[in-house]
Amino acid sequence: MKDLQQVSVIGLGLLGGSIALAVSRALSGVRTVGYTHRPSTRSRARKLRVANEVIGDIKAAVRGADIVIVATPISTFEDIFSRIAGALEEGCIVTDVGSTKRMAVRWAGGALPGTVHYVGSHPIAGSEQRGVEFARDDLFDNALCILTTDKNSNSRAVRKLRRFWSALGCSVKIMSPAEHDRIFANVSHVPHVTAAALINATDSEQLRFAGKGFIDTSRIASGPANIWADVLLTNPSNSVRGIDRVIRELSKIRQAIRSADKKRIEKLLETARAKRSQLIKHKMKKKELLP
Amino acid sequence: MKDLQQVSVIGLGLLGGSIALAVSRALSGVRTVGYTHRPSTRSRARKLRVANEVIGDIKAAVRGADIVIVATPISTFEDIFSRIAGALEEGCIVTDVGSTKRMAVRWAGGALPGTVHYVGSHPIAGSEQRGVEFARDDLFDNALCILTTDKNSNSRAVRKLRRFWSALGCSVKIMSPAEHDRIFANVSHVPHVTAAALINATDSEQLRFAGKGFIDTSRIASGPANIWADVLLTNPSNSVRGIDRVIRELSKIRQAIRSADKKRIEKLLETARAKRSQLIKHKMKKKELLP
Repeated sequence: MKDLQQVSVIGLGLLGGSIALAVSRALSGVRTVGYTHRPSTRSRARKLRVANEVIGDIKAAVRGADIVIVATPISTFEDIFSRIAGALEEGCIVTDVGSTKRMAVRWAGGALPGTVHYVGSHPIAGSEQRGVEFARDDLFDNALCILTTDKNSNSRAVRKLRRFWSALGCSVKIMSPAEHDRIFANVSHVPHVTAAALINATDSEQLRFAGKGFIDTSRIASGPANIWADVLLTNPSNSVRGIDRVIRELSKIRQAIRSADKKRIEKLLETARAKRSQLIKHKMKKKELLP
Repeated sequence: MKDLQQVSVIGLGLLGGSIALAVSRALSGVRTVGYTHRPSTRSRARKLRVANEVIGDIKAAVRGADIVIVATPISTFEDIFSRIAGALEEGCIVTDVGSTKRMAVRWAGGALPGTVHYVGSHPIAGSEQRGVEFARDDLFDNALCILTTDKNSNSRAVRKLRRFWSALGCSVKIMSPAEHDRIFANVSHVPHVTAAALINATDSEQLRFAGKGFIDTSRIASGPANIWADVLLTNPSNSVRGIDRVIRELSKIRQAIRSADKKRIEKLLETARAKRSQLIKHKMKKKELLP
């Protein structure tokens, strides 16, 4: 990418750190600057050589950047956009990697100057782990990355950001922030809530008998509570509707068990089995899942 | 085990096949006989050398056995107990590997002669895969195995069966069938229902955007529907109570989202996170999970 000299990453957790590492791997010659407000994270990030430069001054961090990527919890976006606004170069692309997009667009519109271009990003990568020590330069290999755009989006900026994520290994898809938030409530936010509810419903003493099934089913509930509270609170109506759908489906199976209706139970379980089997096939084909 | 010459396994799926293979690995000199009613499974099992002998006559299969292990769907137990009853040696131990235990005890009591000893087994091992081709001789390494006993259980038979599962690599725990069914409704049957409900609640088109989180959360829903319908129908009240608890926990998070109560959402998610973290630590310590 000849039109890219510097990428600045705000927030050096698992995602931010991995972005900086992936840029170094995939886009040699591009300078990476990382910002984090915690001195301890800065020294760990420096030790791990996560970015060319790791600094504690957010304005200095974005100066000269062609792309600024905000990789902090969603609840900090509004404040961060305001703080960097005055230091951004003309034509700079600002994006974030938050798991919900409608609020980010709104905050960007309110805080960023008209001379820069905001486009939302959501790379579907990460894990329940947190912290720069889990950052990996291959986190985005074969990952899906959603860009969210609307009628105000600058199409050159969108194209450039699309090339950027593709260079990092992502397959990129574009949709509106509203569509994004609707879909990801169902495939990500509600599953998180469901995993947490399942654990909360189970007695600690009994949990000792849990097998691999329970361990996997509940894995995502090990994600950081503050990050996920932000996600749910910036996508509340879709999340509530999704939870209601899960409750309805649970009630259907519950009713079939109570009526000892074997055919109906088998049908409900088989529908889920077949649907998941389709999903796995699709993901294998797209190489988003390896055999 | 000097008091063990022959183990007969009824049903050669993932579990039955793995038991036969694990016996050959861990207990050299012990003869393994496998029964399955499907000719195609018999020829695959013979090709994979799953047991010393693979036969299609269930009475012949159990003749001469010191231990008979029934590894078929729970709904077939009553019929199988009746069919093998006349062919069992005096003092033979009969067990099964079903995921619920109260009904199995009842059926065994009704069908098996007083000259043999029934004890329930539930090795917490397996996967969402099915079929003898997935059988592995190390499936039980470090797995937990529950034996269920009551006041009628023969203590020598219980001790022998305990040594048997230990030899296969299991850590064995003994409890009553009722306690077993209560615990495993919560840590296994309800998680299965929850995973299925989560998938059923999600639109197929949207599922294409699912990430690794959704894939893991829903994994167990790929298990065979008929097997799981049997599990739920032989443990209905515990399952229904467990589903109700999950619905209550989902409703709590739903309510906190609706009231935009960040502290409450964080608390509910953090409770789940901390509880799972304890679980993982416990499992690592017991070597039931590897780092």
